[in-house]
Amino acid sequence: MIACAIPPPKRAPRSSDDTGPRLSIRLDLGGGLRIGPGKVRLLEEIGRAGSISGAGRALGMSYRRAWELVEALNTGLGEPVAETAAGGAGGGGARLTPLGEAVVRTYRTIEAEANAGARERLAALARREGA
Amino acid sequence: MIACAIPPPKRAPRSSDDTGPRLSIRLDLGGGLRIGPGKVRLLEEIGRAGSISGAGRALGMSYRRAWELVEALNTGLGEPVAETAAGGAGGGGARLTPLGEAVVRTYRTIEAEANAGARERLAALARREGA
Repeated sequence: MIACAIPPPKRAPRSSDDTGPRLSIRLDLGGGLRIGPGKVRLLEEIGRAGSISGAGRALGMSYRRAWELVEALNTGLGEPVAETAAGGAGGGGARLTPLGEAVVRTYRTIEAEANAGARERLAALARREGA
Repeated sequence: MIACAIPPPKRAPRSSDDTGPRLSIRLDLGGGLRIGPGKVRLLEEIGRAGSISGAGRALGMSYRRAWELVEALNTGLGEPVAETAAGGAGGGGARLTPLGEAVVRTYRTIEAEANAGARERLAALARREGA
């Protein structure tokens, strides 16, 4: 008999039905650098998975695409958001730099504050009020 | 002599270089209804241009695409965001309903408040601080 460890879901699927109306954000830091939910989720997964390939897999993203997004952040910010270690087939491990952690923290803080501030207006719009 | 009124530019082009870092928002009202900058700009242009075809043209969008976005809002909200009048070739005029105006107003208010609240964090991230 083969024992299979089924990994738990990394993150509860986003369902607006059980959380009510909400908003997501996209940061525009100038110079063409935009940071939205996709890049931030990727950074979070790199922190969890410990590798860019693992993070890409968790998000259903090709390794190449994951690398491109990390590189876009590195280039746009002028400093790396993740450090990689040389490894075997499939690449070595990776971890967030302090800048990468700051990007995630800042994004999630701004998103949470924006949602808190917008809660009543969003709820009113969802009820079709104010029209 | 024919007097030609040259309309002023509809909107200053978005340039992050002269406005500093900022954020844009996307509203998720549940039931698959998402409202981001594209749909809101379209509603604003319908209000200005007085027609869906004119709004589409101003945004470099096909008439069909503009209609699809309006229909997605009408369906998602369960009430129309724009009223159209029968017309000749190219379609008649259109104007926003009170609900359509409320969508624009709510979106722009939430966006402005989120930007005001995030200003210092965004500036710090753009300066690579907090890393």
